[in-house]
Amino acid sequence: MVVKQYPHDLCGGVVMIRPSNRAMGIEYAIRDVVLPARELEKQGIKIIKLNIGDPVKFDFQPPEHMKKAYCEAIMEGHNYYGDSEGDKELREAIVEREKKKNGVDITPEDVQVTAAVTEALQFIFGALIDGGEEILIPGPSYPPYVGLVKFYGGVPKAYKTIEEEGWQPDVDDMRRKVTDKTKAIAVINPNNPTGALYEKKTLQEIIDLAGEYDLPIISDEIYDFMTYEGKHVSPSSLTKDVPVIVMNGLSKIYFATGWRLGYMCFIDPENKLAEVREAIGKLARIRLCPNTPAQKAAIAGLRGPMDYLEEYMAKLKERRDYIYKRLNEMPGISTQKPQGAFYIFPKIEEGPWKSDKEFVLDVLHNAHVLFVHGSGFGEGGEMHFRSIFLAPVPVLEEAMDNLEKFMKERLG
Amino acid sequence: MVVKQYPHDLCGGVVMIRPSNRAMGIEYAIRDVVLPARELEKQGIKIIKLNIGDPVKFDFQPPEHMKKAYCEAIMEGHNYYGDSEGDKELREAIVEREKKKNGVDITPEDVQVTAAVTEALQFIFGALIDGGEEILIPGPSYPPYVGLVKFYGGVPKAYKTIEEEGWQPDVDDMRRKVTDKTKAIAVINPNNPTGALYEKKTLQEIIDLAGEYDLPIISDEIYDFMTYEGKHVSPSSLTKDVPVIVMNGLSKIYFATGWRLGYMCFIDPENKLAEVREAIGKLARIRLCPNTPAQKAAIAGLRGPMDYLEEYMAKLKERRDYIYKRLNEMPGISTQKPQGAFYIFPKIEEGPWKSDKEFVLDVLHNAHVLFVHGSGFGEGGEMHFRSIFLAPVPVLEEAMDNLEKFMKERLG
Ligand SMILES: Cc1ncc(COP(=O)(O)O)c(C=O)c1O
Ligand SMILES: Cc1ncc(COP(=O)(O)O)c(C=O)c1O
Repeated sequence: MVVKQYPHDLCGGVVMIRPSNRAMGIEYAIRDVVLPARELEKQGIKIIKLNIGDPVKFDFQPPEHMKKAYCEAIMEGHNYYGDSEGDKELREAIVEREKKKNGVDITPEDVQVTAAVTEALQFIFGALIDGGEEILIPGPSYPPYVGLVKFYGGVPKAYKTIEEEGWQPDVDDMRRKVTDKTKAIAVINPNNPTGALYEKKTLQEIIDLAGEYDLPIISDEIYDFMTYEGKHVSPSSLTKDVPVIVMNGLSKIYFATGWRLGYMCFIDPENKLAEVREAIGKLARIRLCPNTPAQKAAIAGLRGPMDYLEEYMAKLKERRDYIYKRLNEMPGISTQKPQGAFYIFPKIEEGPWKSDKEFVLDVLHNAHVLFVHGSGFGEGGEMHFRSIFLAPVPVLEEAMDNLEKFMKERLG
Repeated sequence: MVVKQYPHDLCGGVVMIRPSNRAMGIEYAIRDVVLPARELEKQGIKIIKLNIGDPVKFDFQPPEHMKKAYCEAIMEGHNYYGDSEGDKELREAIVEREKKKNGVDITPEDVQVTAAVTEALQFIFGALIDGGEEILIPGPSYPPYVGLVKFYGGVPKAYKTIEEEGWQPDVDDMRRKVTDKTKAIAVINPNNPTGALYEKKTLQEIIDLAGEYDLPIISDEIYDFMTYEGKHVSPSSLTKDVPVIVMNGLSKIYFATGWRLGYMCFIDPENKLAEVREAIGKLARIRLCPNTPAQKAAIAGLRGPMDYLEEYMAKLKERRDYIYKRLNEMPGISTQKPQGAFYIFPKIEEGPWKSDKEFVLDVLHNAHVLFVHGSGFGEGGEMHFRSIFLAPVPVLEEAMDNLEKFMKERLG
């Protein structure tokens, strides 16, 4: 007979059930500022929330033809379990899109449809990482890169990105961070949280480095068409032999965050990822399939007109220009101009705050605007904060007025 | 400088990128019979496929009011990222449903909405298991229970279920399988692949055992209303202090497999799962949210009329009665009568086959009917096979005629 003992987990006489170390190791710093905001709202205080990267919470929606295709699929009966790799026609549409956008030569067999980019990240890290292995990620970085790598027992290693150069990756630093445990280099471009758009030259250097050490590149291109002055360049368009896994989806460019649909494709001329792809296929089969009718909507989106994007990007550009100007005119704050996505990542130049989190909480309580503290995005985010600029200009104006008043008070 | 070496992964001069042992450890035996079936179809041979548990591939569809609610949600703009724990109104509807069905007293805070039961399993095993820890699962069992437990570094340990007693769990065997590494007991009821419906007495014994060893029960109730003679009893309705995690979803009872929506709820009067729930909350936040408009459809389903189920269950009962009769009349085969779900799990009593897989492949090639071999469901499945009975009687008739002719040839 077995007697179970949990001496460290006894709580008031009740034996608590222990969770896994794996799951408990995940931090979620962003939440530390959301809970105090909810408290204020409960007290009836209006908070201007510039913390969540969801265009559909503002005046954006997926284009009509995608909504209609989604509904038609439901009403016509496309409600069954689909293939685990995704709808064949959708994978064909993805091949066309990637060919047109990045000039790559792939087939539907090189595409895996996923429950949004998040699931692509789960598959990739789950299929690559054994305990103690390392993934190079940008610093600062979209938080799930840190969380998921840790969840699978890996070590996220942040490479520097250079603020003064519009947050371009520092390839020399990346090189210094490669060890014999490195499994892949992750590139997020356009970047969350910095809004950086990476230069072709930098991307070529990253590919060369990856080639030297036989590392695949994981390329998060979820904001690829969402750029202001320049155009997005994908490492998949530059590679010769270095394997690139491109991830993209409906959440940002197609303004359908809540539909949870995305994909990854393998640009791997020498088939170095054969075994990794097999592992990803296993993970995909075990979860059965992505949402079936949403995949029909994705086909409509990928093959349909993109004119909605022009209108939406005009709105976003106006908002970016506005927030950029206001933030840079304010005392104590400086910022780079975002070249893509809908985030701006200003620096707290001076003031009484000992940390960016202290700053964000002070702003929340006294200016009633909610940002995310920069250190929530890991290394390189210290003494910065992230704002979205998805809100209409009058909302941004109120937020910036409040913030400016607050900064003047605190600094002088 | 680091020089990477993968001597064991060099393949024709090309350095292959190694996948994780974690992912490669997953088997997917069911696929071993699907690929040969595809080959035959490519040769123009018609295969009657009784291998996949998807009612929507046959003459079943989600009810109209759910489809309409889904479309309305899309057209009305519910396309944003929702809360990671799920839509508040949906969680309220789940609380009502679980109260009505199982008499449990929970709140919306006790509910986590998931991308189908599959994601609930990912969350639970991910939040519970550290390397080498054990989960008790039924033998035979729905394959992802084995695959996911292994993926998270755990050990799936099958407890016996007794064929002669309609595949009831053997609680004595369960007790013998408990060790100081056991983390939970999984119960699948009604069962896939056996069609068993567990007796109240047996469930009470399982609860008592779980209580003795401070183990939580993971209760997969995805087929709960899909029973023929008896009624489903949930361990959540019997427990006093033993924590029960109930999982359910839209895939089976609501005939919406492709919508990928489900939930788990925690019936845990003494709050023993507090830390596990915290861990599950972290996993939920990192993947952002389940599909937003599908959750509105789920509200309509949970609160709407269930009369469609009567019609569908009448069809299923006719099909079950038919296949049960035919299989038992055949030489070399015997079977229990399924009491729930849409699977039957016959025994290969005699014949020239050395394994159930050999039998299934022989049937495929010579009777052109595709079943799944019993050992694909792990321990306890040897020398059995699983058939679904979702197909209309004329299709089942053709399959049974082919099989009967085949059996007579092989045995005579
Ligand atoms: C860089 C980046 N990658 C991935 C995601 C997740 O997107 P999805 O909705 O496709 O899971 C986000 C969302 O904000 C993101 O900013
Ligand atoms: C017992 C059992 N649990 C879970 C599932 C997975 O269901 P879902 O579609 O909710 O992921 C199935 C599907 O066949 C099943 O049979």
